[in-house]
Amino acid sequence: MTTAPLRVGLLGLGTVGQGVIRVLRTNADEITRRVGRAVVVTHASARDPHRARDVSLDGIQIVADPIRIAAEADVDVVVEAIGGLSPAKELVLAALRRGKPVVTANKALLALQGNEIFEAAQASGVMIAFEASVAGGIPAIKAIREGLAGNRIEALAGIINGTCNYILTQMSEKGQAFADALADAQRLGYAEADPTFDVEGIDAAHKLTILASIAFGMPLSFDKVSVEGITKVTPQDIRIAQALGYRIKHLGIAKRTDAGVELRAHATLVPEDRLLAKVDGVLNTVLLQGNAVGQIGLYGRGAGGDATASAVVADLVDVARALGSDARHHVPSLAFQPSAVRELNVLPLADVVSSHYLRITVADEPGVLKAITSILAELDISIEAILQKEPQGGADASVAVITSVIPERRFNEAVARVRQLPFVRHDISRFRVEHF
Amino acid sequence: MTTAPLRVGLLGLGTVGQGVIRVLRTNADEITRRVGRAVVVTHASARDPHRARDVSLDGIQIVADPIRIAAEADVDVVVEAIGGLSPAKELVLAALRRGKPVVTANKALLALQGNEIFEAAQASGVMIAFEASVAGGIPAIKAIREGLAGNRIEALAGIINGTCNYILTQMSEKGQAFADALADAQRLGYAEADPTFDVEGIDAAHKLTILASIAFGMPLSFDKVSVEGITKVTPQDIRIAQALGYRIKHLGIAKRTDAGVELRAHATLVPEDRLLAKVDGVLNTVLLQGNAVGQIGLYGRGAGGDATASAVVADLVDVARALGSDARHHVPSLAFQPSAVRELNVLPLADVVSSHYLRITVADEPGVLKAITSILAELDISIEAILQKEPQGGADASVAVITSVIPERRFNEAVARVRQLPFVRHDISRFRVEHF
Repeated sequence: MTTAPLRVGLLGLGTVGQGVIRVLRTNADEITRRVGRAVVVTHASARDPHRARDVSLDGIQIVADPIRIAAEADVDVVVEAIGGLSPAKELVLAALRRGKPVVTANKALLALQGNEIFEAAQASGVMIAFEASVAGGIPAIKAIREGLAGNRIEALAGIINGTCNYILTQMSEKGQAFADALADAQRLGYAEADPTFDVEGIDAAHKLTILASIAFGMPLSFDKVSVEGITKVTPQDIRIAQALGYRIKHLGIAKRTDAGVELRAHATLVPEDRLLAKVDGVLNTVLLQGNAVGQIGLYGRGAGGDATASAVVADLVDVARALGSDARHHVPSLAFQPSAVRELNVLPLADVVSSHYLRITVADEPGVLKAITSILAELDISIEAILQKEPQGGADASVAVITSVIPERRFNEAVARVRQLPFVRHDISRFRVEHF
Repeated sequence: MTTAPLRVGLLGLGTVGQGVIRVLRTNADEITRRVGRAVVVTHASARDPHRARDVSLDGIQIVADPIRIAAEADVDVVVEAIGGLSPAKELVLAALRRGKPVVTANKALLALQGNEIFEAAQASGVMIAFEASVAGGIPAIKAIREGLAGNRIEALAGIINGTCNYILTQMSEKGQAFADALADAQRLGYAEADPTFDVEGIDAAHKLTILASIAFGMPLSFDKVSVEGITKVTPQDIRIAQALGYRIKHLGIAKRTDAGVELRAHATLVPEDRLLAKVDGVLNTVLLQGNAVGQIGLYGRGAGGDATASAVVADLVDVARALGSDARHHVPSLAFQPSAVRELNVLPLADVVSSHYLRITVADEPGVLKAITSILAELDISIEAILQKEPQGGADASVAVITSVIPERRFNEAVARVRQLPFVRHDISRFRVEHF
């Protein structure tokens, strides 16, 4: 086997790209001892190559046009650290079609265009590795694709967006409103200037799409994920949830049921004694339920240049080892052999079965509780917990209910009927409740 | 690539062996879809092949002499699920020397004889896989060897013996004495009739030996691990630790320091707000500290036939993929290239630097606290926390102290001096304190 350095062509010199350079340099000795050869960034491209950076670019050939790295330069593997759909997609496809393995952290690209990209990798017989696309440095993809390869994976749930988790943790610990916690997160660099992708749940849905595919052996199906964010979570809901013994977390959830597969990302009440409830701040966690292993969990830093670079470099080590071996010896991109990847029926939310949290603001009148509980009883919805808060200073009262496990369709009907009650105010809060 | 089934020769039909048969059958479809071929146990051996078992042996050729499976039978891979040193070692070596890959769950064998076994595997260019040897179904070895391959791993700590964790959890939750909790564990099948290996920390030390080797790139060095069990933990210590904000857990710990490597397995106080403190019962957890990724953690079931079989089957999938490829494409057994594995200086306990817990039973006399604190002050040991318990019903009082972070040699000196004080009773409890 050659002991010449593995030549890495790096697309993008942002946080992740710089992290890759730094980690490869800092840990050069360890990495070389593991791989049997050095792993070195030889070429890099960036939109603005002359911007000041935290790492030195000495010894790296800066290439103006990224397509030259992807398609022409004398590199053994291409790392795509640009993000976004274009030109990342064209560059990744160009590299794969030239027979160059690709390592990417780009969850949006894979969630939306992954099927085409994985096909291109398969056609060329080269690897595309993407551990860094989900949960930063936590080896969640390796755990699912390889570590649990003996299992039928029944469900997974993850706190996979650090921005949401940071904001919800701040709201919980400091009683902050969403907007204030978001502003703090932006000031600290945990949220972007335009936070939409994070706080609306889209980033978590991208990651969930990837996790579900490799767990269940289905094509990437982002358009079938039900997506909600955290913008509707109020400090009041967090307080009431706590009083009922729950924390509110933004989860990506994928579950197999007899009726089909559930794919959803949304704010969720989880019992406070579960480990999910205790993973706070910008930490990420992924829980996996396998039919042989039972439940296992992984947690750690889900973002940050070096944590993400840790995953990129682990992928580079895998690629370095596999280089020159026949594709039949590689781990399949989607964990299952391409010919064995199967479309699965994804349930619409109305068919999802879960417990629900409902908070209603009501005028402080007699008969309120009776009217609400009557509607629930008529629809055969049991009440697992109920909390009525006395009005303060002549204001309205609030009633919060945790329901039994029911099809969401029936809960929707209950909410619609409750909304018609004369004493019910406009703001009704509702969130799903899960007991992972 | 052949699509003929991968033929597995199974040595041992105990809990793990039966689990492997069951998991391979139950998940045959999922596994075949992942690997591209079926994985089937074709041959098996057992001390008593006619004993009643929970799985059917239909379709499996039962071979009286296990060496025939290891060295002769027409199998593609050998699973060693016998345990213990002999004949497991001879069988594993026979298989490797015949060029057959081996999957084993045998931590004692690897910790004690692993260097010879890995050499034999290297000489034959075949894989020996051992994910099941540590932490059951949790893919901890894969996380260290591959998932964190971009890191310099600075430290790891794990709850890696389910028996100890169950007993300590029972003692903590029910106030039971060690002997009573052990008896319960034995009744429930969580502890063996002879519990020595578990409760004296030897099993955890075996696993720690393996984890430290693959984390630091050093040969297996079981004889350099400092080993203590949980038999000296009392309900009183657990109560006092709780009052001070700590839980007592049995940990395997490996750390790099400038002076050398620490390898130790012992009961440890950990702050109650850490995730380590919250992993209870028979669950296992492994924390890893990498210089790029920061801290990540994994947890799940550390024992049980199906959880362990989950790891064995994951290894079988890895072996099936690698079969026929050159050894240079395999993950090195000890994570680092054999030529890069280096002896490291392992520190004696006296040189280990940590915080300590000390509990002293004293006659209820004036000047007690002053005498104790004077000794600590003379030795430049700060007190992080102190708890004096009033004597109950004319009995002796107790004083518990958490020290600053100091070399253990100095703490030993303090304990020796305290022991000489006239009012100090015989039972002095001491445990290390860690803040992972």
